[in-house]
Amino acid sequence: MYGRYVNDTENPELYATFMPKVEAYRAKLKAGILDEYKLPDELVPKAEKILTKPELAIIDTPGYQLVEKIASGELTSVEVFKAFAKTATVAHQTTNCAMELFMDEGLKRAEELDEYYKKTGKTVGPLHGLPISLKEHYNYKGKVTHCANVIRIDNVTDNWCLTVEVLLNAGAVFYVRTTEPQTLMHLCSNNNITGLCLNPNNTALTPGGSSSGEGAIVAMKGSVMGLGSDIGGSIRCPAAFCGVFGLRPTQKRLSMKNVTFSFTGVEEGVVCVLGPLARTAQDIDLFMKVSLDAKPWERDATLIPLPWRDVPVPAAKDIKVAIMYDDGVVKPTPPILRGLKYAAEKLKASGVTVVEWEPFGVKECVETVNCFYSADANKAQKDALAASGEPVLELTKNALAFGRGDDGWSATEERLGQALRDKYRMEYQDKMMELGVDFILSPTYVSVAAKLETIHYWGYTSLWNVLDFPNVVFPTGLKCDPAVDVPDSGYAPRSDIEKYEYELYKDAKEFKGAPISLQLTGRRWFDEEVVKAAQVVHEIVSA
Amino acid sequence: MYGRYVNDTENPELYATFMPKVEAYRAKLKAGILDEYKLPDELVPKAEKILTKPELAIIDTPGYQLVEKIASGELTSVEVFKAFAKTATVAHQTTNCAMELFMDEGLKRAEELDEYYKKTGKTVGPLHGLPISLKEHYNYKGKVTHCANVIRIDNVTDNWCLTVEVLLNAGAVFYVRTTEPQTLMHLCSNNNITGLCLNPNNTALTPGGSSSGEGAIVAMKGSVMGLGSDIGGSIRCPAAFCGVFGLRPTQKRLSMKNVTFSFTGVEEGVVCVLGPLARTAQDIDLFMKVSLDAKPWERDATLIPLPWRDVPVPAAKDIKVAIMYDDGVVKPTPPILRGLKYAAEKLKASGVTVVEWEPFGVKECVETVNCFYSADANKAQKDALAASGEPVLELTKNALAFGRGDDGWSATEERLGQALRDKYRMEYQDKMMELGVDFILSPTYVSVAAKLETIHYWGYTSLWNVLDFPNVVFPTGLKCDPAVDVPDSGYAPRSDIEKYEYELYKDAKEFKGAPISLQLTGRRWFDEEVVKAAQVVHEIVSA
Repeated sequence: MYGRYVNDTENPELYATFMPKVEAYRAKLKAGILDEYKLPDELVPKAEKILTKPELAIIDTPGYQLVEKIASGELTSVEVFKAFAKTATVAHQTTNCAMELFMDEGLKRAEELDEYYKKTGKTVGPLHGLPISLKEHYNYKGKVTHCANVIRIDNVTDNWCLTVEVLLNAGAVFYVRTTEPQTLMHLCSNNNITGLCLNPNNTALTPGGSSSGEGAIVAMKGSVMGLGSDIGGSIRCPAAFCGVFGLRPTQKRLSMKNVTFSFTGVEEGVVCVLGPLARTAQDIDLFMKVSLDAKPWERDATLIPLPWRDVPVPAAKDIKVAIMYDDGVVKPTPPILRGLKYAAEKLKASGVTVVEWEPFGVKECVETVNCFYSADANKAQKDALAASGEPVLELTKNALAFGRGDDGWSATEERLGQALRDKYRMEYQDKMMELGVDFILSPTYVSVAAKLETIHYWGYTSLWNVLDFPNVVFPTGLKCDPAVDVPDSGYAPRSDIEKYEYELYKDAKEFKGAPISLQLTGRRWFDEEVVKAAQVVHEIVSA
Repeated sequence: MYGRYVNDTENPELYATFMPKVEAYRAKLKAGILDEYKLPDELVPKAEKILTKPELAIIDTPGYQLVEKIASGELTSVEVFKAFAKTATVAHQTTNCAMELFMDEGLKRAEELDEYYKKTGKTVGPLHGLPISLKEHYNYKGKVTHCANVIRIDNVTDNWCLTVEVLLNAGAVFYVRTTEPQTLMHLCSNNNITGLCLNPNNTALTPGGSSSGEGAIVAMKGSVMGLGSDIGGSIRCPAAFCGVFGLRPTQKRLSMKNVTFSFTGVEEGVVCVLGPLARTAQDIDLFMKVSLDAKPWERDATLIPLPWRDVPVPAAKDIKVAIMYDDGVVKPTPPILRGLKYAAEKLKASGVTVVEWEPFGVKECVETVNCFYSADANKAQKDALAASGEPVLELTKNALAFGRGDDGWSATEERLGQALRDKYRMEYQDKMMELGVDFILSPTYVSVAAKLETIHYWGYTSLWNVLDFPNVVFPTGLKCDPAVDVPDSGYAPRSDIEKYEYELYKDAKEFKGAPISLQLTGRRWFDEEVVKAAQVVHEIVSA
């Protein structure tokens, strides 16, 4: 499915021993598509044809309203589940977004929840009956968790990722685990187990990565919301490319306890965070509230006990937004610049104070974060690849060459990198305080969704990972329009990387229909304010 | 003064060029002793002889009451200042606790505060008129900050340590900066600029370190409270040895912005924190409340916006305390064991639930934290020493040999160390939650205050640095009594380090009068609860 399985392995005999397992995994995934939810091939992608009218209404209802309707008895968990099970199946048939489907378990869970509600008149928790998708690398008790590495294709995890367990205890229904790229370090989706995932808006494009499947399934309404992770853009890029909301929270608010990775030890220079993708800012808020109301810090001593604060949605006139049109390293392409200018005009017209943000230190920050990624000389990643002989994919090669590549860093270099990071953390915050800027609005990536397996530059997202400022990505409602978003062929790139990225947007036709999304950033730990501001900014811009 | 200036330098010519500056620094310190506050030599240590009766009452009044009395007009800032200026002078004459004295500036500041109060009827802030001492390495605008390194003896800092500035804005009066050891990495006090500081309870003993001068001056009532720092025990050890309260808060609550160090870059494995020493738990609470009410996170993006919560002092019957009698590496000496048992009995009799804490992982944690200290192969420390040719002191040599010593660590090793740290963070918290233990009561050091320049083992404090669990050290009211605290000569040490440390307490007479202090530890970020519990535990134990 969506082929492109690479056979370029240095150890064909070793890898061959894994192939039967990989084939079996793919067959199991295929078998996970239940006939009753399946769309006949000729109808793809006309999903609405297999959904009943009430089901179409369900998938169009935001999660925060669905939980109310289930809690009031207006809808059952099974009704809600079936609607999303069908769209999830269609999403997978269309984009190859799933790594594991277990619809029968999801249905059983929904039935049990309905039974509980019928018996007690109560819900089990604030997410009672809500279908939620999960990126594959979150440990799922009793199921294989491989993190897109063939070597772990038999790795049955005997514990729950704590954040997933919190959702489960709150009443969530699980039925699909979604795809991610090899090493997790692509802003695309390819891996040797289930192959490429495609963008639901235009299947010639990538859904982004590494939470590739989450971007695709949430955009296609195959789940109410989904759980991704982000150390360089892995929530925000798929959210942007697929046209949904995605939050990269400040570090150490949501638990990463029991997550499968190929990283060495514990990385403090840039911290991988977990976060939600959803179709509304209100659902992002719901996810965070439920996750933090459970006090996960009582079970994970690496977390900070910061409850989710109930802050008001700000009035337009009370916020000041600075727009970064260019990070000074790679200039955004015409559709993104159009989106930024469009947003600026709409915001100004609504009473938001809009100023321009002068970028600084981006190149240094991005170089530093790339060194953080590879400070262990990528040993853990390379070991995981070599242990099965699986082919090393193109974007994996690119990621492994980041920073110092095979040389890695000494502790001294890492500490100097951390000092540089803190210097910019201070300077960015000081600049925001000095200007009275509440939020920074910027691109999520240089362009709209890219062609498959092409992206090399992540600076628009990874800048905020190293600074650890929280962001919400949201759709502007605009889509790439080749007639309007004409490539600027006269632009003289400032560097090789800019030339490479800028030239990817050479033929605008190829990007037709790709969503134009933007990224809103706030101060560290003020995630609540960013989510609430993203709600109002989105309302204004997309109106 | 307290001699022991070592002349063992490898570069006598280079060092000789600094000697005039060092001599001038010492002369300036000596001149800082104003005659009007000075105790005639024959009266040392009978400080009460030069204080008036009202002044004696002032130095016996806790800070939280002094600020009320000043705010109500019952006392003036100048009255309060003069009382503490006299005792500070005596403290310095007795223990050599100061690195810099600027009594005239302190008096001027107190006068200005009185004038402001007279004119407006208001205080400038919640610490209006409160005399506070500062460890020397906190940047003080316009003054030399050298961090006990001769190379920086001309280093006039042009900014304020942010936490110091917060205290200043709240109305604090500064007049003395206190001594610290070379490299900051001794649990003692020696340096080549002002030499050894002594323990006010017994001048044959060390006041501990590295916040040596703070321990001595606060114990002698030369300031209401003082500001120390701690990456391995540097607040808690002087607090314990001198018999006062000391808080090592959880990391990233108090700002370390603008502090002078000889460390490489930013260390995330074990984080140096700043914290208060004082004579009451209520004053610790006051310090923290004022520091965090100022929202320092708005000026320091490395901080977490956790306001200081006003939690109630718990009832004895509502807390469960686990006592760690031995960390499994170095057994505490008889006075410390007596203190622990005494505390256990008193607590039980008052209704506190008391259980025993089984130590685990201490050796591994201490080895790891020692590697964090030296992960840069101590390059920054060695460079700072070599640049002036100053003699390398004995305990500096000991500290520089910690962990991998000259070899340092790779980023990979540091990350594996961080993973081990997080494993134990989780396990310690899980164990506390499982047992329902609110606090752990343990020794602060193997023994009571040690002889000068002898301590090699810090595990009882550094364990909590690497775990980052907050602690309050408090005096039990007991003192070392040679008649009771007889050395256990039959004990068979489990290791060389235990043998070394245990044998330091061979002749009990030498330790007569040294305070027996204990350390109370709580869960990460729950500093407020630890401070409030320390208040009640201290009240019970010292009653």
